This record gives sequence, C-alpha cells and structure tokens, in this order.
Amino acid sequence: MPEKPRILKRELVARTRVFRVEGLDLEFANGERRRYERLLGGPDGAVLVVALDAQERVLMIREYSAGSERYELALPKGRVEPGEALEAAAGRELQEEVGRGARDLRLLRSVSLAPGYIQHVTHIVLARDLYPARLPGDEPEPILVEPWPLARLDELLTHPDLTEGRSLLALLLARRHLDRETAGGVA
Amino acid sequence: MPEKPRILKRELVARTRVFRVEGLDLEFANGERRRYERLLGGPDGAVLVVALDAQERVLMIREYSAGSERYELALPKGRVEPGEALEAAAGRELQEEVGRGARDLRLLRSVSLAPGYIQHVTHIVLARDLYPARLPGDEPEPILVEPWPLARLDELLTHPDLTEGRSLLALLLARRHLDRETAGGVA
Repeated sequence: MPEKPRILKRELVARTRVFRVEGLDLEFANGERRRYERLLGGPDGAVLVVALDAQERVLMIREYSAGSERYELALPKGRVEPGEALEAAAGRELQEEVGRGARDLRLLRSVSLAPGYIQHVTHIVLARDLYPARLPGDEPEPILVEPWPLARLDELLTHPDLTEGRSLLALLLARRHLDRETAGGVA
Repeated sequence: MPEKPRILKRELVARTRVFRVEGLDLEFANGERRRYERLLGGPDGAVLVVALDAQERVLMIREYSAGSERYELALPKGRVEPGEALEAAAGRELQEEVGRGARDLRLLRSVSLAPGYIQHVTHIVLARDLYPARLPGDEPEPILVEPWPLARLDELLTHPDLTEGRSLLALLLARRHLDRETAGGVA
C-alpha cells in the first residue's frame, strides 16, 4: 500500500445551508503537490432500506428529486441521527417514509458515494417481518409507495425512473443475500 | 405520476474550484413551499469502466481518495469530455489510468449518485478485447492496477478497501451481463 500523502493545509472553502466544501493541500510521497476539494459529510451517514413484505415485494418509493428535477423511483433512506444504531435508523426511516415498522433489520453493506471527492457513507439495511406503523416525516407531500415483486428485479434494474446507483446496488445485494439463505448458506 | 413542483427561484449559492451549489425555491402541487439545494454537475457526466482481460480478470485500480483520506480500490473512471462518445471516453480513461485500450466497449447502464441533491450521471461501460496502450493522465502519482479474477467477485463485494457503491454495482451488472451472454441470452 502506498504511503499516504501529507495534508499540508485544510480549510473550509464554502458553506451553504446543506453543503460544506473543504479544500486540501496535499503532498504525495513522490513530492508532487496538489490542491483537492471534497464535500464534507456528517460522521453518522445515512441508511438505505430494502424492505420486503410477506409477498417478497420490495417497497419502493417515488419522490421528487431536486438533483434530477423529476420524480424518481428509489429505496427509502435518511440520515442516521447522532447516537442512533443503524438498524434503529433504518426502522425509523421506514416508518416515516413507508408507514411500516420492521422486526428483522440487518446491515448488508456500508458503501461510499464517490470517495474521491465526497465524504459520505450509506448503510444498506435489509428489513423484513414488517408491520403497519407510521411516524411523521418532514416531506413536503406524501411519499408514494410502490411495492415491486423482487421476482421482477430485471425490470427494476432497467427501469428508466430508477437511476440511483445505491438503490440498484442495494436491490442486487438483497437478492444475493436471499439466494444464499435459500441455499442454506450464510444467513 | 404527481405533478412536478414549480421552481419559483433558482440561484447559485456557492462556487468553488470544483463544486457549484444551486438553491431552489420549490412550490409543490399541494401549495407547500420548500428551499432545496443541489450540487450541480457537468452535462456530460462520467464513465466508470469494467475492463476484463483475456483471463476474465477485472482491472481494479488503487488510488488516493480525498473524500475518505485513504487509498481505495475502485474501477477506473473519469469525466466525459464535451462532444465525446461514452465508449470513446471509457476507452480514453482506460488508456490513461490502466494502460490498456479496448476494442469492445459497451454501455451497461447509466446511473445517478444521489438524485435528491446531486446532479450527476455515471455511465457504466464494459470493456473487453484489451491491448496495451497508454495515454498520459494527470494523476499526481502512478495509479496501481490490481487485476482481480471475476470468479472471486464475492471477495471483492466484501473487500474493506472497496467501498464505492458505483464500482460495486458495476461489478454486479457486468457479472449479470456475462452470465446472460453465456446462457445465450441478451448480448
């Protein structure tokens, strides 16, 4: 593994209501110097929830996305609160966005968005054994919930309204996890 | 599909060397008003390349990532230049970062990072029929190339140095694509 570059200087170069950008002056092991920038993230990250109902349908949501300026199909997600366990955060977000609680919550994988320039971690959680339960959310309008049979995963993987890489990855990881359980492998 | 919110106002709220943040005042169909922010992206997006050599090894790279402040394992990637075809961009990045050209390049899927607050698209390209070819890159130090047998995909999926969601998704999509070709399905 190469020797890490030395950080010669770090400074906040922009701060808005939502984003903070940090500038980093780096000196690499070979003496090369570069200025990098990165988007700072919270220390706790976010959860992304693959919730499966008793019919093995995944509960997708449809929500306005300002980044793409359209309604996107995606998995429920939200920020982990300070001190909150990942599974608890996933259960809370599911109640806020989908109106379901889950008795069985397990972390599948933690992933980064773009580690080169974004400091952000997303924890992918599989939720099963659901029951009706709703917590108030802070959405501007009700979130539409669309149950999709996981057996129709191929359709979801090519669906033009589902573009988010994290959600696509989470669906594929959930599928692999279930296949292994069925095969009597890792539970 | 719900009626899109009206954009009452949009303004650039921050601009740094690398990032631009736009503020959006939205009015939803139900009259609810909210202020959103999003990170603006270039119109052409980026390519992420799954390059397979003749031994069906995927050519991973190891590069310093400022977002996580460590060396990460990931797939080669880079920005699409204005007017450049996606396949050409993928071929160019592969030559710059890995020292290989590819005769067979095909787009597998275009994905977003986090469409709620980032305007960014990544085009996942499968590259095969490789040959030695190098273009100069702009990296501060040589990129390390690590060939990984795709047969050891499970190891990659749980590798602690490989955290990038896009790269993990791209590996799984490539695996599915190859399985279908082998099964005589969609090429």
